Amino acid sequence: MNDTICAPATAPGGALGIIRVSGSQAVEIVNQIASVNINTFLPNFETFTHIVDKYANFEKDKKSSNIIDEVMITVFRAPHSYTGEDSVEISCHGSRYIINKVLELLVKHGCRMAEPGEFTKRAYLNGKIDLSQAEAVADLIASSNKATHQLAMSQLRGGISSELSLLRDQLLKLTSLLELELDFSDHEDLEFADRSELLNIANKINNHITLLVRSFETGQAIKQGIPVAIVGKTNVGKSTLLNRLLHDDRAIVSDVHGTTRDTIEDTIDLQGITFRFIDTAGIRQTTDQVEKIGIERTFSAIDKARIVLWVIDEGPSIKEFNDIKQRSENKKLIIVQNKIDKVKFTPLTTVNFPLITISAKQGTNISQLEQAIFQAADIPALSDSDVIVTNARHYDALIRANEAIQRVIDGLQQQLSGDLLSEDLRQALDILAEITGGQITPNEVLGNIFKNFCVGK
Amino acid sequence: MNDTICAPATAPGGALGIIRVSGSQAVEIVNQIASVNINTFLPNFETFTHIVDKYANFEKDKKSSNIIDEVMITVFRAPHSYTGEDSVEISCHGSRYIINKVLELLVKHGCRMAEPGEFTKRAYLNGKIDLSQAEAVADLIASSNKATHQLAMSQLRGGISSELSLLRDQLLKLTSLLELELDFSDHEDLEFADRSELLNIANKINNHITLLVRSFETGQAIKQGIPVAIVGKTNVGKSTLLNRLLHDDRAIVSDVHGTTRDTIEDTIDLQGITFRFIDTAGIRQTTDQVEKIGIERTFSAIDKARIVLWVIDEGPSIKEFNDIKQRSENKKLIIVQNKIDKVKFTPLTTVNFPLITISAKQGTNISQLEQAIFQAADIPALSDSDVIVTNARHYDALIRANEAIQRVIDGLQQQLSGDLLSEDLRQALDILAEITGGQITPNEVLGNIFKNFCVGK
Repeated sequence: MNDTICAPATAPGGALGIIRVSGSQAVEIVNQIASVNINTFLPNFETFTHIVDKYANFEKDKKSSNIIDEVMITVFRAPHSYTGEDSVEISCHGSRYIINKVLELLVKHGCRMAEPGEFTKRAYLNGKIDLSQAEAVADLIASSNKATHQLAMSQLRGGISSELSLLRDQLLKLTSLLELELDFSDHEDLEFADRSELLNIANKINNHITLLVRSFETGQAIKQGIPVAIVGKTNVGKSTLLNRLLHDDRAIVSDVHGTTRDTIEDTIDLQGITFRFIDTAGIRQTTDQVEKIGIERTFSAIDKARIVLWVIDEGPSIKEFNDIKQRSENKKLIIVQNKIDKVKFTPLTTVNFPLITISAKQGTNISQLEQAIFQAADIPALSDSDVIVTNARHYDALIRANEAIQRVIDGLQQQLSGDLLSEDLRQALDILAEITGGQITPNEVLGNIFKNFCVGK
Repeated sequence: MNDTICAPATAPGGALGIIRVSGSQAVEIVNQIASVNINTFLPNFETFTHIVDKYANFEKDKKSSNIIDEVMITVFRAPHSYTGEDSVEISCHGSRYIINKVLELLVKHGCRMAEPGEFTKRAYLNGKIDLSQAEAVADLIASSNKATHQLAMSQLRGGISSELSLLRDQLLKLTSLLELELDFSDHEDLEFADRSELLNIANKINNHITLLVRSFETGQAIKQGIPVAIVGKTNVGKSTLLNRLLHDDRAIVSDVHGTTRDTIEDTIDLQGITFRFIDTAGIRQTTDQVEKIGIERTFSAIDKARIVLWVIDEGPSIKEFNDIKQRSENKKLIIVQNKIDKVKFTPLTTVNFPLITISAKQGTNISQLEQAIFQAADIPALSDSDVIVTNARHYDALIRANEAIQRVIDGLQQQLSGDLLSEDLRQALDILAEITGGQITPNEVLGNIFKNFCVGK
């Protein structure tokens, strides 16, 4: 925490590059490579200046230019900065050479290259944000659709923190009632803490935490996208359907850098939720005619999926139906009857699953299919007041907290003494505090949290 | 020019994203999506605020959060901005979703997505920079080593502009002498313009422009990297040598994003100059043992190269030497005698080419080889005062200007009348003005210049 860190905060390849510097020596170090005295800059004021390599003068080639770039520099003074420390932001041209050169000069003059997430870690350690908010920053940067963005933004703005604060208040009430009883334990006639009232509060807390724990499944589905398997026999039109679904997913503002679709797997966004089509390599790379997806591969795709699109045409055999149905237990199965433009159907009226008849080729009823997929995901409508747990660390802590609460409930029912109950309550309080980092957080936990950040944040 | 444009100025994937807005309505439009009145913001002052989707309130799901991001907003007031117009910079989290959403809102409220280079184009049209400086901005962003950076920076800081200004002054002097003569053409006894003096000036200008034209070859070599072919028989150690050379090229600050080597071809940086190894796929993908590079492929590599590294071991046949030598005419041939650690050499003392004996495997004498490669490139040491033409448009204009000057010289020698000479001089002046854009520049020329920019600059 005593050293001054630097890192690029932007990805390479843009028009601009931002380099962040933070720490007690930030202004002094940048001053060494600026053409004017930035110590005199008004805080938060973007000022045009030059980054110069003052060392260049001492090198052999005295004539060579020592101006690295024309930049805008902004000085932020502690505690009014992202990290809470003195900070400098250098906005330079987005050339890889320039960015690396500026970083090289900063390191030469005493900076250390920041570790991933180190700026946000310092913001947490300096009390600017709590730990769950710090984690939300990483989620926010990674957010790729409305739902993930909304969850991250809610967490960043203290959603889970205030929820936990509520729970902790209830726990503290329970604890204080019990401890009051302990203080007056000599007076056997006094009954401060009505046991049934205590049990009532403990059960409420338990239920509340259980809801949060359960929300994790939704949170994970939203965060990682909902896996969908497209299965069915050769030549029923799976690849046409996949292309149709992918094609229908148009962004309002087309991505100006145009790298979305290439880098990630086949996904579509329906009403702000991401759906991931799994094991599509076989479907995409081959035409249906030469496709050779065996039954094993189909089953493996189903196992990984939450939603199964079973594509059929003229009507499958009873055996095929039973196979798919059996394998899709605990999954949402949607039967997609394709080729309504040219195939005469044997209606599957007796089947107890959503059945959508479409023409993938002509695009008929695709929106109905999308609607069915979205409904099968069973994602509750999100609102600002909902708190959804998206973070595995929080999930783990909530489960442990609830185990402690359960011990309190068991203890109350078994008429255990207040001091034993109190210990479990204290433990639950400590575990909940882990989430926001209100307690002292061990270094290895912090390391785990911030290692997945990008550099420069 | 009357509309307000917006674009992301940073590549996707970083911690931060910068969105630029420029035009007369810039502040008003951003105000529509900011949580506070940014009209009151001090210019150049980075202020923390929120981007909100005010439309979201009118949608069905009233509860859904309308905060898109927590951002820093900076307002720049005309003419004190990059474009010379009112501008706003929004620094948001680097999430693709957030960046696209903010752009979508800006467009909803009246912005237009900027074309590539449109911000810099406006800077030129508003007289903030001249045309060659605008071109230098693109070069600067693309610069990947010290030499390309230095050339772009020199041009951005007006290097070529001041050189041209010098030439134009000389041309104007010539013109005014001639025109003075024309004004007094009735007085045959007056001789203002000494013809031999005129010829002397014209020749000087011609020589000066010729130097600039010639510098283009150096400029291109620096900008595009110098092509090097590694040729030689199977099993002489070409792939080991290539790996050794690539491995030796270590950056001082290792690239934090780690995408350099994968995306570009095999290159090394020697003293700030890039050398591109051409046709290395065959060398890299196969071991020497299974390599099947035929003589045709070798010759084709030599044809594309400026420097040829001919790798030999025990001593090649006279025929092989003659083949390579003949084919490498007009190229810089370096003979690399490999495997000095284990092969007994037949010394090639009678050969009139640089000969470096190395062990690629053990790394012996690699720095001598690098030195020989750098010398073979024959790049003059660059200093601030050198003007190197790197731009094909400038090169073309300089050639045309020199053709006009040549006509003046021819005319002077043929005793042509002053008014005929004056026309060619005017033409030369106009052509030189094209480079800096001092004259009115046709739209299609501007279009050509800016189409290769990245969006957001």
